[in-house]
Amino acid sequence: MHTSLDCIPCILRQVLDASRLISNDPAFHDQSLRDALGWLQDTDLNLSPPAIAQVIHRSLRQKSGMDDPYHSIKARQNQLALEMIPFLKDKINSSEDPLLLAARLAIAGNIIDLGANGDLELTDIERSIAQALSMPFVGDEEKFRQAIKSAQSILYLADNAGEIAFDTLLIEQISPERVTLAVRGAPVINDATMEDAIMVGLDKIVRVISNGSDAPGTILDDCDDNFRQLFRSADLIIAKGQGNYETLNDEKANIFFLFKVKCQIVSRLVNQPIGTQILTQTC
Amino acid sequence: MHTSLDCIPCILRQVLDASRLISNDPAFHDQSLRDALGWLQDTDLNLSPPAIAQVIHRSLRQKSGMDDPYHSIKARQNQLALEMIPFLKDKINSSEDPLLLAARLAIAGNIIDLGANGDLELTDIERSIAQALSMPFVGDEEKFRQAIKSAQSILYLADNAGEIAFDTLLIEQISPERVTLAVRGAPVINDATMEDAIMVGLDKIVRVISNGSDAPGTILDDCDDNFRQLFRSADLIIAKGQGNYETLNDEKANIFFLFKVKCQIVSRLVNQPIGTQILTQTC
Repeated sequence: MHTSLDCIPCILRQVLDASRLISNDPAFHDQSLRDALGWLQDTDLNLSPPAIAQVIHRSLRQKSGMDDPYHSIKARQNQLALEMIPFLKDKINSSEDPLLLAARLAIAGNIIDLGANGDLELTDIERSIAQALSMPFVGDEEKFRQAIKSAQSILYLADNAGEIAFDTLLIEQISPERVTLAVRGAPVINDATMEDAIMVGLDKIVRVISNGSDAPGTILDDCDDNFRQLFRSADLIIAKGQGNYETLNDEKANIFFLFKVKCQIVSRLVNQPIGTQILTQTC
Repeated sequence: MHTSLDCIPCILRQVLDASRLISNDPAFHDQSLRDALGWLQDTDLNLSPPAIAQVIHRSLRQKSGMDDPYHSIKARQNQLALEMIPFLKDKINSSEDPLLLAARLAIAGNIIDLGANGDLELTDIERSIAQALSMPFVGDEEKFRQAIKSAQSILYLADNAGEIAFDTLLIEQISPERVTLAVRGAPVINDATMEDAIMVGLDKIVRVISNGSDAPGTILDDCDDNFRQLFRSADLIIAKGQGNYETLNDEKANIFFLFKVKCQIVSRLVNQPIGTQILTQTC
């Protein structure tokens, strides 16, 4: 999807949040926002929102001299999510429909939206999970079940740190030997990288690859050849999070998107209200 | 108050809303937003938010070739508010404390926040009034009552169209012969001008002057000499709306501000949550 004019104020809000998380220096916040204003003035809105976020977060990392400003936040998010896993596995094991419950919990991971919230506590995650499980889930579950059943190769696109621990639950239900998990190629915001996949133990149960890109989404032209080849050859792609939806929703591929609708623009696109936990396809 | 970095995304959101209200042409919306991005990149944040809005809305009017893009919206807002007045007067006449009820209703006018909502219906206003009357009202009511009692000259600063009809209720309670009502000197957003004061009949009960400025607040240096002289000589100033607060909160004058807290920045400044109906002083 391209970037809407409505995304611009929202992107600037994120620049401000990120700059404050990276530094306590008001001059850094001011300069980061002004740089983003200048860059956005001439930017091509045919780019997707994650493509714009990629440029902006590269610039923030460069200005701050930090390769991975969210490193400690991501570690904490992984740790908090991991603490939930035994409890959630028990729920899945005693469920009548383990696959569907695992899919719902994988979306719950996205709902938590650990984002830039460094103060997140375990009780916040627990509350989010309870909320996620009690909220309606929109999508063709049966079609998803059949797609998983018939696929010989599945490419699973991860989203954020923390959330990636919840992906373990769904991957375990879909026979990990068929699955390749792709993470971002380099740190951007709190998106999951190889380090996060290893931290939550996914490398022990599934083949994990980097997509070669530092975009907070999946911009195929920016990914490496290995990833693109897997993307084109996979029977089924499971894409987590709104960033992956925003970058892949126009692709002709067998993709199921699992995410929570987080803004008005995507809400209009999927024709569901903000907050909806959605399982959707585009082709 | 100066403009916070947090105001920037909010100002851009307003630019987008205003450009869409002024024109149906997507190219106009795009150019308006890009022009604002460019201008904000170098802007002095020591200016108040209304001072920034003044420049931006001047530019929107100039680009659109419309002197008063909100003209018909303001007329409708005045008309809708006027329809409520007989009902509200009845409530005040049967009240044990008419002054205080009139003050609450004057703030209710600000709560309605007719803003750019061209689709506003009478039922929306009725709902807002009912809500306003049932919500707690924060401020030193007794001090306000005493200030009104002892003042020989009162300068009343209006805020928006529509809302100005509700100001009639309070002005009637404070002996109109002592009061001068000041409106904006030229159209800006849906702020009340002389035409609106006349439309709601305020010129029949009180002396109405223009402040000489097209800022959506009261920037003294931008107002005319006549207004400034009245401002400096008034025993008491009653200032309606957040825009007047944002531009006058650092002034050493006997000002009572009546408004609804509408954003996080002002919320922190007055130490009250967003949505609070407030009666506050700064000196």
